[in-house]
Amino acid sequence: MDSKSNKIRNLKIDTPHGSLKTPFFMPIATRGVVKGLTPNDLEKLKATLVLGNTYHLWLKPGLKVIKKFNGLHKFMRWEKPILTDSGGFQVFSLSKFRKITDKGVSFSEPESGKKHFLTPEKSIDIQLTLGSDIIMVLDECPPWPCSKSEVSAAVERTTRWAKRCKDYFVEKTGKIPKSEKPLLFGIVQGGVHKDLREKSARELTSIGFDGYAVGGVAVGEPREYLKKVLRYTLPFLPENKPRYLMGLGRPEEIIDSVKAGIDMFDCVIPTREGRHGRLFIREKTFGKISQSSKINSKKVYSRINIENEKYSLDKSKIDSQCDCYLCQNYSRAYLRHLFKIGDTLAMRLASEHNLRFYLEMMEKLRTK
Amino acid sequence: MDSKSNKIRNLKIDTPHGSLKTPFFMPIATRGVVKGLTPNDLEKLKATLVLGNTYHLWLKPGLKVIKKFNGLHKFMRWEKPILTDSGGFQVFSLSKFRKITDKGVSFSEPESGKKHFLTPEKSIDIQLTLGSDIIMVLDECPPWPCSKSEVSAAVERTTRWAKRCKDYFVEKTGKIPKSEKPLLFGIVQGGVHKDLREKSARELTSIGFDGYAVGGVAVGEPREYLKKVLRYTLPFLPENKPRYLMGLGRPEEIIDSVKAGIDMFDCVIPTREGRHGRLFIREKTFGKISQSSKINSKKVYSRINIENEKYSLDKSKIDSQCDCYLCQNYSRAYLRHLFKIGDTLAMRLASEHNLRFYLEMMEKLRTK
Repeated sequence: MDSKSNKIRNLKIDTPHGSLKTPFFMPIATRGVVKGLTPNDLEKLKATLVLGNTYHLWLKPGLKVIKKFNGLHKFMRWEKPILTDSGGFQVFSLSKFRKITDKGVSFSEPESGKKHFLTPEKSIDIQLTLGSDIIMVLDECPPWPCSKSEVSAAVERTTRWAKRCKDYFVEKTGKIPKSEKPLLFGIVQGGVHKDLREKSARELTSIGFDGYAVGGVAVGEPREYLKKVLRYTLPFLPENKPRYLMGLGRPEEIIDSVKAGIDMFDCVIPTREGRHGRLFIREKTFGKISQSSKINSKKVYSRINIENEKYSLDKSKIDSQCDCYLCQNYSRAYLRHLFKIGDTLAMRLASEHNLRFYLEMMEKLRTK
Repeated sequence: MDSKSNKIRNLKIDTPHGSLKTPFFMPIATRGVVKGLTPNDLEKLKATLVLGNTYHLWLKPGLKVIKKFNGLHKFMRWEKPILTDSGGFQVFSLSKFRKITDKGVSFSEPESGKKHFLTPEKSIDIQLTLGSDIIMVLDECPPWPCSKSEVSAAVERTTRWAKRCKDYFVEKTGKIPKSEKPLLFGIVQGGVHKDLREKSARELTSIGFDGYAVGGVAVGEPREYLKKVLRYTLPFLPENKPRYLMGLGRPEEIIDSVKAGIDMFDCVIPTREGRHGRLFIREKTFGKISQSSKINSKKVYSRINIENEKYSLDKSKIDSQCDCYLCQNYSRAYLRHLFKIGDTLAMRLASEHNLRFYLEMMEKLRTK
């Protein structure tokens, strides 16, 4: 990536729960909790918002509970913004006996077999009930691999559903004052096909949303497609609206995507890797992530597996450049011990550390 | 219990890591961590010391690691006192192919089959290496049920081993200044037999220790034996030395034992119950625990199972009298949700709550 292509954007996004500066990373609170962590922990890590999952929260604890609390914020005690996905991805990837028609998706819960029907309107309704600050439209995310005609059909349905989501959202939120109104984001599909990405982006832009997501990535396709997909999509999105790359990624993918003009990210990598004892370590050039496009984004960090025998007597910090509780208090040997005995504190501390790595990486990218 | 029998004692115990006021409760940090919690969490709960386990720490992480850190305090980052048990109880209850002779106990590790030999001297050595503030002698804790002759033999071996522990301890710590020297506690055995309890207490007292534990309880015997055991034992222990009831108990057992003259407790109940979603709730009379012996110690608290359906919409706090993070921030419905989805935050918050219940109970008992 040469210096001319460094397109880091510093946008401000106003939501009912405060303003957000881009680029940012969202810790994942699928079921109303970032696994093992409290809102207080997240504030210390300087998280600015979290991502909740429509599908999971709809099924558990269910909307009756959420309504009782006037929304997810008060239920989970998180006072900053929440983005919720539409549930589409989970319906496609997790549910059984799924049947898609233009009307919506019918599916059964994996555990109970209980039947549900998710439509574009229903997804908006659930997200409004959750009290989400950034609402995603229901899209159809085709699997990988997939024929071009299937991707094309998914793009067309995604556009039709996006239109219905927008209309329903406008109807439902018409009377809400602007400062309290959530944002609505469209999702661009189109797989790895240049023409379909352009078509999808153009159609969504003509409907008009508060922001645009690049969907249908990180669904199993080879990683080298990412740059192509961004190149096929981003030129057709408005400059002044935030752009969200869904479900990605490794630190170098995030850095490169920010430099390509992406503003928002969510990914399970920091927490999932942390729970498995794999920790991100800042290299010397970490602080210069955004300053020069000549720095190889793969080389600003390394990763260790703390369960490795070689750490058993290691008194050093996990990462001497890190300000998280783990790095400020504990040795590598102790964290290794916690993993070896399977104590949940191990997963908590390692999740915090990796989240702090990601969040600080975004801070560096915000000060371009 | 009538008012004359209220024998709450307020002792001060000086250790290398600070002074302790009795009565107190020790959260269990078997393997160098109170499950899921940091020292910072424990400080907020106002824990004054923790209990480490010689057997478990000897096997994992092993003494090489502990030596590298100059002891358990620095390894686990806990700056207040630590009491360590002798490992005897675990050798008897957990190990395979156990063989006891007067010299010591040989056993194999359950997982690896690796052989070890624990002697009274070895147990003291390990505890000195751990840097324990309160060291327990190696005793023989007979199982329940058990013939009187077996209990009698265990009492005799316990006395012989206690003598060896004392001699070895004196030899090893002779040059340590008093302020840095750990305390050494004897352990009274004798099962449920009046004469054997008296014999054991008298023999240990004549050797002379810094404190005395009542061992061989909570090993499966009916709970009604507890009061008898205390009545058989306590009159033969010196008034001015701390008394530690090992492995107990329910709140009412602790309250009643404090009133019978016990000063120190450790128990898995608060954390284990917490991890299973069972939470202790203060009743109105909780604050008066120590003020009147007419208050039924069973009635100062209740216990709820938070997974119960009836809490699914419950916006109230777990315990309105509690100052823990859970009670200050969350609803019953949210904690129930965390348990239903199996998030480790549930166990962490519930452990904290129950520990805070126990620790505040001791605070109330200290202000007799």
